[in-house]
Amino acid sequence: MLDPRRLCIHQVTLLRQCSTPQFIEVMGRSDVRCTALWREKTREYGIEKTARLLADNGIALSGYCFGGLIASPDSGDAARARDDVRRALDEAAALKAPCLVFVAGGVDPRDKDIARIRARVLDGVAELVAHARSVGVKIALEPLHPMICATRSVLSTMKLANAWCDSLAAEDIVGIAVDTYAVWWDPEIEAEIARAGKRICCFHVSDWLPDTQDLRFDRGMMGDGVIDIPRFRRMVEAAGYGGYVEVEIFSQRNWWQRDPFEVIGVVKDRAQTAV
Amino acid sequence: MLDPRRLCIHQVTLLRQCSTPQFIEVMGRSDVRCTALWREKTREYGIEKTARLLADNGIALSGYCFGGLIASPDSGDAARARDDVRRALDEAAALKAPCLVFVAGGVDPRDKDIARIRARVLDGVAELVAHARSVGVKIALEPLHPMICATRSVLSTMKLANAWCDSLAAEDIVGIAVDTYAVWWDPEIEAEIARAGKRICCFHVSDWLPDTQDLRFDRGMMGDGVIDIPRFRRMVEAAGYGGYVEVEIFSQRNWWQRDPFEVIGVVKDRAQTAV
Repeated sequence: MLDPRRLCIHQVTLLRQCSTPQFIEVMGRSDVRCTALWREKTREYGIEKTARLLADNGIALSGYCFGGLIASPDSGDAARARDDVRRALDEAAALKAPCLVFVAGGVDPRDKDIARIRARVLDGVAELVAHARSVGVKIALEPLHPMICATRSVLSTMKLANAWCDSLAAEDIVGIAVDTYAVWWDPEIEAEIARAGKRICCFHVSDWLPDTQDLRFDRGMMGDGVIDIPRFRRMVEAAGYGGYVEVEIFSQRNWWQRDPFEVIGVVKDRAQTAV
Repeated sequence: MLDPRRLCIHQVTLLRQCSTPQFIEVMGRSDVRCTALWREKTREYGIEKTARLLADNGIALSGYCFGGLIASPDSGDAARARDDVRRALDEAAALKAPCLVFVAGGVDPRDKDIARIRARVLDGVAELVAHARSVGVKIALEPLHPMICATRSVLSTMKLANAWCDSLAAEDIVGIAVDTYAVWWDPEIEAEIARAGKRICCFHVSDWLPDTQDLRFDRGMMGDGVIDIPRFRRMVEAAGYGGYVEVEIFSQRNWWQRDPFEVIGVVKDRAQTAV
């Protein structure tokens, strides 16, 4: 049973139903006091206006999602992508988000050497550390599911995220986001969550549906799939994490089709029974 | 450039176009001298008849695909599944296939403890070793992509396959099938392929398409995706593997729609340029 004060609902869970102001209003009326914002949608509405709305509704941010995609083999493209991450860090600071969720970027067909791509992204993160520190926003490295390695993230395991943290030696400003959906299958997840310890700065939950039909937008509500989510919560808590539990459900064929208050009602129920 | 005598085309590459006798005839006429057969389709036509057709057309088998799915938490179901694997081993022996590709099985919602499921499958494989030895057919443990962990295989990495082999201590009769599509994303793949060494008894190739639309049936032709397949071939060969290179492409929206001789022509070309 999750302390309701630790419940956070990520904006993407209602991505298709609500504009940013509608979403914040729904959250306020539902008495959910924490969210993580989707950058694209937040920018569409405006950073300053969003910051005011959050304050007016008494809603905190657990994070800002996302910046990254810095894997390009073209050095000009990669530099521009890093500049964009710096802007995302600035936006996160303006929104009072404690961290920016970092998505590495995928494989460009011009360079299929995945070890080299990973090394390039790690070098790129190292170049972003100073800016993150200057604005006081953590970079939350998020390992993503290997099925989106080609398109979204070559950071595919917790073990690699830990190795990157070891290499960066910037524990004050680089952390790790653990997402049950991305890492549940990993045979080494328990050891790597323990190793991550205080690096864990975000904990995202959703469930894996056995009949998954899309590589990105078919996540399940907690309890509807095969992930032992309570076990994951025990693991991150044993590692020292006591922050928000963020419900992050991309769901084209189900939850994005439903009434926002219905979705939040189900999330609140499942937070008690399946998290 | 691959020695054409090492080219093997897996039956699934033409799964929808050809019955088993049609497929074997197409292979013979195309002068491709090795295949791996898809069990379901082979049984449909008949094991004895298939064995005769292979001999008549001078086509060897690299393997028989597949047996397994022994992960059930219900002990009766699991025992029946193991019996079915024994039958698959018998069929493989009758077909003169050197190995049976082993697919572990996924997560049953009745037991979401994935560590326990993996332990159960490993125990199950241990019970199959004696039968495999008695019929002289290797069990080829095949790590499959984490995106099919829930439905098909909790054996998700080469590292875990190596750990299972260590534990089974049956090197003469349990090997590992390396499939580029399943493991290309793995940060530890190079070390684990080297560690596998002579355990590697099959090498399957296909490519990962950036716009993948299905979790099982949307594989790409070598060269059409983001996997550095020649690097994989160098890795398995450095580990001591010198056997067939098996082209195994499940492709609902592309290659399964095409003329069998066209597909084989493209495979032969790509074997020279992209493998």
